[in-house]
Amino acid sequence: MSEPAPTITFLSDYGLEDEYVGVCHAVIARRCPRAQVIDLAHGIPAGDVRAGAIVLRGALPFAPAGVHLAVVDPGVGGTRRAVAIGAGGRDGESHLLVGPDNGLLMPAAERLGGVNDAVALDASPERLQPVSSTFHGRDIFAPVAAALAAGAALADVGEPLGPSALVALELPVATAGPDGLAAHVVHRDRFGNLILDATAEQLHEQGIAPGAAVRVAAGAAVHAGRHGAAFADVPPGELVLYRDGLGMVALAVNGGSAHARLGLERGDELTLAPAQRQ
Amino acid sequence: MSEPAPTITFLSDYGLEDEYVGVCHAVIARRCPRAQVIDLAHGIPAGDVRAGAIVLRGALPFAPAGVHLAVVDPGVGGTRRAVAIGAGGRDGESHLLVGPDNGLLMPAAERLGGVNDAVALDASPERLQPVSSTFHGRDIFAPVAAALAAGAALADVGEPLGPSALVALELPVATAGPDGLAAHVVHRDRFGNLILDATAEQLHEQGIAPGAAVRVAAGAAVHAGRHGAAFADVPPGELVLYRDGLGMVALAVNGGSAHARLGLERGDELTLAPAQRQ
Amino acid sequence: MSEPAPTITFLSDYGLEDEYVGVCHAVIARRCPRAQVIDLAHGIPAGDVRAGAIVLRGALPFAPAGVHLAVVDPGVGGTRRAVAIGAGGRDGESHLLVGPDNGLLMPAAERLGGVNDAVALDASPERLQPVSSTFHGRDIFAPVAAALAAGAALADVGEPLGPSALVALELPVATAGPDGLAAHVVHRDRFGNLILDATAEQLHEQGIAPGAAVRVAAGAAVHAGRHGAAFADVPPGELVLYRDGLGMVALAVNGGSAHARLGLERGDELTLAPAQRQ
Repeated sequence: MSEPAPTITFLSDYGLEDEYVGVCHAVIARRCPRAQVIDLAHGIPAGDVRAGAIVLRGALPFAPAGVHLAVVDPGVGGTRRAVAIGAGGRDGESHLLVGPDNGLLMPAAERLGGVNDAVALDASPERLQPVSSTFHGRDIFAPVAAALAAGAALADVGEPLGPSALVALELPVATAGPDGLAAHVVHRDRFGNLILDATAEQLHEQGIAPGAAVRVAAGAAVHAGRHGAAFADVPPGELVLYRDGLGMVALAVNGGSAHARLGLERGDELTLAPAQRQ
Repeated sequence: MSEPAPTITFLSDYGLEDEYVGVCHAVIARRCPRAQVIDLAHGIPAGDVRAGAIVLRGALPFAPAGVHLAVVDPGVGGTRRAVAIGAGGRDGESHLLVGPDNGLLMPAAERLGGVNDAVALDASPERLQPVSSTFHGRDIFAPVAAALAAGAALADVGEPLGPSALVALELPVATAGPDGLAAHVVHRDRFGNLILDATAEQLHEQGIAPGAAVRVAAGAAVHAGRHGAAFADVPPGELVLYRDGLGMVALAVNGGSAHARLGLERGDELTLAPAQRQ
Repeated sequence: MSEPAPTITFLSDYGLEDEYVGVCHAVIARRCPRAQVIDLAHGIPAGDVRAGAIVLRGALPFAPAGVHLAVVDPGVGGTRRAVAIGAGGRDGESHLLVGPDNGLLMPAAERLGGVNDAVALDASPERLQPVSSTFHGRDIFAPVAAALAAGAALADVGEPLGPSALVALELPVATAGPDGLAAHVVHRDRFGNLILDATAEQLHEQGIAPGAAVRVAAGAAVHAGRHGAAFADVPPGELVLYRDGLGMVALAVNGGSAHARLGLERGDELTLAPAQRQ
């Protein structure tokens, strides 16, 4: 049997209405026809580097070792660098991440085992010339990812860069306060589930135990919920606090939308506490 | 020439904004790198098992024999079983369907020739552990589908289950009444076409012949239309009753939206009759 | 190493909510399992042949030589022909375009080097019978594209047709007037960027130089912008006139939406002039 095709995962905020994702696929197919591209997600809110980083970090541990292309790039055409990063260690697998140097790739690289080496791609011999100032996904990132999938080494596609030169990303963190755990909505999915910046450890420290009733204060409103594992751990229409598929603490309504129920958007704050606390 | 890659079709209500579909693709690629995944549709309305079942049944006859992964799963994490089903007979082709045991797979299995055998997947050796309570697409269904595509037998991935133990699905059926055929909107597509639960036989019984004028009563409003085969069988802006790509009776407006014209949503009732009936 | 898989690019207005695109993929996989399908874009506004033609023309130069399937087909089931077109010359590459004969394919064929030969597909031996009157993507275009990818010649899939018999497409063109360049919005992307029918040459003729301030009049409102190359060439929230990824002149707001700022939709007119002109 022949060797399996190299894989390139691909995440972006390009959406699927337009041709941006498709043109990147086309560019990859020209440079590395054997590559199998796995579209992880393209509905990251436009320019939301944090949401992109959180989704990438949560999704990549399920992906095959290989090349990971990610583009959420509000600074395209400005002074930010384009980079490729070697990361790994976990399970002895080796990963190559390609994208803008705005922090998007860093939480995922950390989760995969940490940054081993990096190169700057701005003058990559693999780039499509002339390079546009608005679509580096097509002109720099996709062709570099394809070259790496075809077997090129990091040193072949860019200029060496010290890992310490890479831009870090500060993710929001929930903080304990007098009324409970002050958390923020960092993302929202299709089902209206709200992904929070709280951790399971923080819930534990607040005394919010699995199975326990939870008090969710958002603005002037207070909602009753339960800390569960499954949506079905609460009756239909009730609020459940759970650990989601990305490994994040999240709020859902069984058979409904926590977004609609709580009226919260990305960035909004809410306070979590055991139900008995007044 | 090498053997063609095994195919896995994939339908869900996960949408494409989030990473759910992409993570399932990633899981499949880890377990069976050779598999070719065909995304049938991921825009099934959230939790709408009936709409998912109707689309799956209409789409699978056009797909290659192989594995069919389908996840519309409002009861995830509750008591419903996870199953894989062997179906076939039609054209001597053999199909394996994987998904929740909530009826989603049954109309398609029936259309493909009927259920031959089934297994319960809840303790499948192929599942990703720990199994989450909210994302069985990733943790159970995708890895099992990939294992089957890689050549595993049903008996390798789950516990035998009598076909009669499978949960059936009751689909709505239009009924003849004094004013005509009382039908329901079961689905709506991007173009605003309304898919109904009426059958071609029922139209015939009502005396609604191909080419004939049709009376469509919805609430207090009555609309004039025509029973045609193509959108262009009526003038632009006019209502046409036709058989759609899923083999279902549907209503469209040539160059417009029947949804907008009639103001009907899923579940709404309308009455179809020959135009001469008063 | 084995021969690379043949590629089929695929563009449509089918959207990704429904099963239309997925069923076409399924049909292709049955006829040509080796084909690699590259989804260019499926979010073309429903029935907007012009927008489809503009996106196809801009995207195909980045795609591998091969088969290109495109379906924006408001006249499906009516009198318009179904066609396959041989085009090429550019870089010695050969392309086969498949779709409705409504002009959709023509700007792309021209860009790729011009039409060499064409066939009518309405009685193609590759079509799926019975052919529906509403879904020629599934019944005619996808199976023909797959047959061509599998190695069939144009003459094998249809009846010869003189290139002059093909329906041309008239694209809107900006026109110079006393107040500047009267242009139209021909498309809008996910980010709210507005794609115009103006050309870089027309901007030059108006004296709108790279880096210069621009006056954008839309209805009664006048907006100030700048002619740049990157979004970052203007401060956040400011309007930039640039050449987009399709090679079209476009308007964007750095970090925002030109669509929201200007309140313009497809077809709307606006006037571009150097800022000093009063």
